[in-house]
Amino acid sequence: MTDSPLLKPSPPRPSGRRANQLRDVRITRNYTKHAEGSVLVEFGDTKVICTASIAERVPEFLRGREQGWLTAEYGMLPRATHTRSDREAARGKQTGRTQEIQRLIGRALRSVFDLNALGARTLHIDCDVIQADGGTRTASITGAFVAAHDAVTKLIAAGKIAQSPVKDFVAAISVGIFEGSPVLDLDYDEDSQCDTDMNVVMTGAGGFVEVQGTAEGAPFTRDEMNELIALADSGIKALILKQKEALETQGV
Amino acid sequence: MTDSPLLKPSPPRPSGRRANQLRDVRITRNYTKHAEGSVLVEFGDTKVICTASIAERVPEFLRGREQGWLTAEYGMLPRATHTRSDREAARGKQTGRTQEIQRLIGRALRSVFDLNALGARTLHIDCDVIQADGGTRTASITGAFVAAHDAVTKLIAAGKIAQSPVKDFVAAISVGIFEGSPVLDLDYDEDSQCDTDMNVVMTGAGGFVEVQGTAEGAPFTRDEMNELIALADSGIKALILKQKEALETQGV
Amino acid sequence: MTDSPLLKPSPPRPSGRRANQLRDVRITRNYTKHAEGSVLVEFGDTKVICTASIAERVPEFLRGREQGWLTAEYGMLPRATHTRSDREAARGKQTGRTQEIQRLIGRALRSVFDLNALGARTLHIDCDVIQADGGTRTASITGAFVAAHDAVTKLIAAGKIAQSPVKDFVAAISVGIFEGSPVLDLDYDEDSQCDTDMNVVMTGAGGFVEVQGTAEGAPFTRDEMNELIALADSGIKALILKQKEALETQGV
Amino acid sequence: MTDSPLLKPSPPRPSGRRANQLRDVRITRNYTKHAEGSVLVEFGDTKVICTASIAERVPEFLRGREQGWLTAEYGMLPRATHTRSDREAARGKQTGRTQEIQRLIGRALRSVFDLNALGARTLHIDCDVIQADGGTRTASITGAFVAAHDAVTKLIAAGKIAQSPVKDFVAAISVGIFEGSPVLDLDYDEDSQCDTDMNVVMTGAGGFVEVQGTAEGAPFTRDEMNELIALADSGIKALILKQKEALETQGV
Amino acid sequence: MTDSPLLKPSPPRPSGRRANQLRDVRITRNYTKHAEGSVLVEFGDTKVICTASIAERVPEFLRGREQGWLTAEYGMLPRATHTRSDREAARGKQTGRTQEIQRLIGRALRSVFDLNALGARTLHIDCDVIQADGGTRTASITGAFVAAHDAVTKLIAAGKIAQSPVKDFVAAISVGIFEGSPVLDLDYDEDSQCDTDMNVVMTGAGGFVEVQGTAEGAPFTRDEMNELIALADSGIKALILKQKEALETQGV
Amino acid sequence: MTDSPLLKPSPPRPSGRRANQLRDVRITRNYTKHAEGSVLVEFGDTKVICTASIAERVPEFLRGREQGWLTAEYGMLPRATHTRSDREAARGKQTGRTQEIQRLIGRALRSVFDLNALGARTLHIDCDVIQADGGTRTASITGAFVAAHDAVTKLIAAGKIAQSPVKDFVAAISVGIFEGSPVLDLDYDEDSQCDTDMNVVMTGAGGFVEVQGTAEGAPFTRDEMNELIALADSGIKALILKQKEALETQGV
Repeated sequence: MTDSPLLKPSPPRPSGRRANQLRDVRITRNYTKHAEGSVLVEFGDTKVICTASIAERVPEFLRGREQGWLTAEYGMLPRATHTRSDREAARGKQTGRTQEIQRLIGRALRSVFDLNALGARTLHIDCDVIQADGGTRTASITGAFVAAHDAVTKLIAAGKIAQSPVKDFVAAISVGIFEGSPVLDLDYDEDSQCDTDMNVVMTGAGGFVEVQGTAEGAPFTRDEMNELIALADSGIKALILKQKEALETQGV
Repeated sequence: MTDSPLLKPSPPRPSGRRANQLRDVRITRNYTKHAEGSVLVEFGDTKVICTASIAERVPEFLRGREQGWLTAEYGMLPRATHTRSDREAARGKQTGRTQEIQRLIGRALRSVFDLNALGARTLHIDCDVIQADGGTRTASITGAFVAAHDAVTKLIAAGKIAQSPVKDFVAAISVGIFEGSPVLDLDYDEDSQCDTDMNVVMTGAGGFVEVQGTAEGAPFTRDEMNELIALADSGIKALILKQKEALETQGV
Repeated sequence: MTDSPLLKPSPPRPSGRRANQLRDVRITRNYTKHAEGSVLVEFGDTKVICTASIAERVPEFLRGREQGWLTAEYGMLPRATHTRSDREAARGKQTGRTQEIQRLIGRALRSVFDLNALGARTLHIDCDVIQADGGTRTASITGAFVAAHDAVTKLIAAGKIAQSPVKDFVAAISVGIFEGSPVLDLDYDEDSQCDTDMNVVMTGAGGFVEVQGTAEGAPFTRDEMNELIALADSGIKALILKQKEALETQGV
Repeated sequence: MTDSPLLKPSPPRPSGRRANQLRDVRITRNYTKHAEGSVLVEFGDTKVICTASIAERVPEFLRGREQGWLTAEYGMLPRATHTRSDREAARGKQTGRTQEIQRLIGRALRSVFDLNALGARTLHIDCDVIQADGGTRTASITGAFVAAHDAVTKLIAAGKIAQSPVKDFVAAISVGIFEGSPVLDLDYDEDSQCDTDMNVVMTGAGGFVEVQGTAEGAPFTRDEMNELIALADSGIKALILKQKEALETQGV
Repeated sequence: MTDSPLLKPSPPRPSGRRANQLRDVRITRNYTKHAEGSVLVEFGDTKVICTASIAERVPEFLRGREQGWLTAEYGMLPRATHTRSDREAARGKQTGRTQEIQRLIGRALRSVFDLNALGARTLHIDCDVIQADGGTRTASITGAFVAAHDAVTKLIAAGKIAQSPVKDFVAAISVGIFEGSPVLDLDYDEDSQCDTDMNVVMTGAGGFVEVQGTAEGAPFTRDEMNELIALADSGIKALILKQKEALETQGV
Repeated sequence: MTDSPLLKPSPPRPSGRRANQLRDVRITRNYTKHAEGSVLVEFGDTKVICTASIAERVPEFLRGREQGWLTAEYGMLPRATHTRSDREAARGKQTGRTQEIQRLIGRALRSVFDLNALGARTLHIDCDVIQADGGTRTASITGAFVAAHDAVTKLIAAGKIAQSPVKDFVAAISVGIFEGSPVLDLDYDEDSQCDTDMNVVMTGAGGFVEVQGTAEGAPFTRDEMNELIALADSGIKALILKQKEALETQGV
């Protein structure tokens, strides 16, 4: 990871990080005991439990076809945030934000899954934020990939599928314009004040799966977008190294 | 509008359009009679009724502040599509897709609105698709801007606000990779088969408000993204001309 | 259509119409392109899109019987009315009024359909009001009949059914006591102030399918009811002529 | 009450009643102890508990106006019917039929109530069917009037209002065409097989408040409608005598 | 039933009853006509209609197994109570209290039912409170047992099952600490002020099925619990005599 | 803690524990960073995050009274269990079991809180199970007490209240009859097969707050209940020591 390509010096970040510096990222496998894959992913103070559960059935729209499905759900504990949010189960419906995030997680993971190779079964991804400090959706995608990988490994070990449906790695990171400068991996302090917020999902091969950029304040320019994309690219390379490390060094 | 910058010839599009060619775009103001702003927007066979309604109150979270709000809702008639969809009102909830779109429309319009200049009132945008053929969200944003502009004009004419809260134009278009080549303004035939689908929202000044790109099939590269962005840029310039024309040539 | 049978001169109507005069009625077939039947029906400023969609399945309670079903749903765009109404899909439920109207539309159309001749399929009627000025339920029934007729014609043309399940025409009109006098086809100005409001559904053969009269103010007498029924009878005869004209003169 | 005006002899009714004969009607006041008005009304085997409850507040749309409101809710115990129906509270929503009926009850009672004389309070009517044998909505209206009258009497006795807001009596009855002949007060056996079903609500002064006729089978003629209305008129006169008797002879 | 084992004299109860005295208990069978079992149970002024309905199907989780199911639902008429409660069907959900009670009723009855002997059918218990004065859940269980017994008797009489699935009687009663002393069968005046409220469900053989004790005020001691249990035991013995009497002396 | 008072030797427990032996209990304070109180409580493999959040407002029914409120919500991550459960937020409602548990937690904590001393504020307790192995409700109560205590300590430190509203300790444990013998603190293996399951909530002073015993199989006797209560009493004494230890030895 090199320094920011910007010539002007970046303003200091609240966390003291350099513009292109990720927070401490930790991926803990086998975090809870029942799920086929269970990961605690931490991007600094953002902590998400990602589980992957295998069900031997498929949704209605795939009945009778020899193909699997992967779907994701997302939630936050009510007090994962600075002030308590209403519990969605008690309100009786998920917010638009929740639905947007869980749809994003599902699409991101499906982009690297061969659903035919999964057979007629469903992989349920659950991402539950136990502490939020910005970047919960990107941490969720990054951790969920590892949980899904573990679940698939168990399917192979059990002889249920012959080859892995996992075609590539996938991870996600946020980038944004904070006080006029592009920065990588926004925490809450930056996220709540930034002008532009962009979430990027990329594969191990470097392809883009999702780019979602929003100008919260001033619109952004094509140059800024290019810088943000470059920052995201470097961040995701680092995250995929973390995923590989977790998969290699922690026992099954 | 010039030809595509790609050297290799683009494959033919189902509609026979050139890669950088918009569908016929029509913006009809004063389409229905009750709303403060009411527009029928057509992107080819995609037809959306966009209304802007003024309410002399603000949501709870803005009570007591001298600031307005702009919010958007989106819907599709059950048979706007090839096969009938369930009516959301009968099912008792909006789909995740609907919520995602209406949140996008709201953010897009707020990006060019000075909510302080609006005073303590709410501008409700309703976008209802009566016929769908791809691009309903981009047509919605493009038409809703004109409806909102008309509503604001009435507020000024009535002496309720002194100056316009509208800071700039805003419009949206989709771009995508269809059979390996970037194309502008996807219709349903293209949208249902494309590898990458990207929705871009830009202001009259050329700033980006939203970029939402999704790889439905193969991931996309940075070069492809650049080409898509360039196509979108040209398309939005044309759409904003259409908006200006509609506002200038049709009577109030 | 003859003049009102009342001896005393009727008071002037807000619209300047005679007591027994319908608003301008327009029935436009093939209004949107996807549905098997699609009609825009206009009773003056009341405009409703009526579609008929064929589904090759029947509800649970008819499984295993060689019989079809016809069901109707009704909705209003939030700003079809003078002031914006809440969107039912966002509120999460349909109002009692909506349910009452869609049940009425369904019963009215089923009264002229031989559901055995339809085979094991469902005809879904959707009536969506894009502009409301009184009489939305009667316009819906009148337009929906034409849409259903078109859908059935396609089934016959496709060789799916041998003979038409349509046994007769059906149309609906409102009548009411406005400023003491019976009038035909109330618009919003009359409807919001009238003493009695009655909706009448009749067949081409002149039989009554529904009579729903409500005293909003003073109760009504049997004589008044008789006059209202006579007015409705004449109005429905005229509407059925409009339906026939639309079916004969507009291409398939 | 005289015999049917029809010349041809009516076919026998399943219950052995004459065409113009009501079932045994019983109105028991003070049936439960908490409500301001509480009535058990029986039309033969149809049994409905009607309560009237006074609340010292009005709905939002009446705030700040010195006017009251009257609203009604309706329900059926799950096993009030031949086969068990789902409990609406467990399903999480009221059916369209339930909403239609409770709206009808509310309109019927409001037609004889001077809501200004009620002051800024709400009269809640609850009609709960404990045994159903046809005619639950007409029994509900007939019983609810007596319960509402009792509640109002307590308001006057307590000195909360000076004069009664009750302007007239109101009652309701069903009539229908059963095996080709008009009959009064249909029970379930008749209701489930009749061609036409009509519910009529009338005041003590003989005015019509609601007429709701539906052809379940063959459409009905104007002559049939006239006969039905005449039958209903005679039935309602008898019901209002029952209401008067109950109010006079049973202690407060 | 003997006097209370407490040496100190109990304080007077609002109703004037002795500490170990039940209210007047009445069990009326065949209260409504459609249900396979229908009972009005009264514990003093608490009145509950309990019906048992047989359905020839089982829930999803029992499909394919030759076993039956018994499930219970509970409700209160809105004005069964001192002040009107919201109608759960109108609110769109059951309260936590309602769900807790209906789960309790179901468990209590299943404890004396051999679900294998019931065959592949479901016994639906509905307990609807028409007047509440404390103890609605205990009255519900006590009455529901009799209704269920009647429904089962009809199954046997119809030759659908060979032997009764009813293994024992079951009844329930509340006990509590009121003004420092244990009392049996709390009415509303006691229930709303007591320190401890305990609901006990027991079989005819004297076994405990449920003990649910809650300290509403001061925590209770083990001695107090023992006294409460003894009181409950005596009360339930008396209730089961009432059940037997009802089953023996009232015709089928 | 002494051995079981039973003379006959207990059968071996699946976990190898003695009949009166708790699982390893761990209480970790300050587990997440935003909540005023945040505790991870572990009863063996059962792990629950308990947070206490302070809101400076009270529910509607307490408006205008100088009194606070304490309320609890409970949830389980979908894959906290052996097989994945539906996410309640996605289903749109909480199960009856969830509501029963959260009502129990709320009552248990309120029994040791002086709500007047809390002032006009609400203490929201959230108990979210991240791994379930039996006893989630008892672990929740035990952990929630410590979280609530921490939140209150912050209120005192901030000078918002003068004295602690906490009147006593409170903890909860399950006991049951497993293979004929009473055992303490059932894990999932025991819970899913036991005959009787009882949850007991007690204060530091040894008073009972809740006793909820259910016979899942054979009814239980009074002697068995006495043994279960004695076991629970010893277990809760041990749990309260754990709570004290956590509050004393871990820094604020």
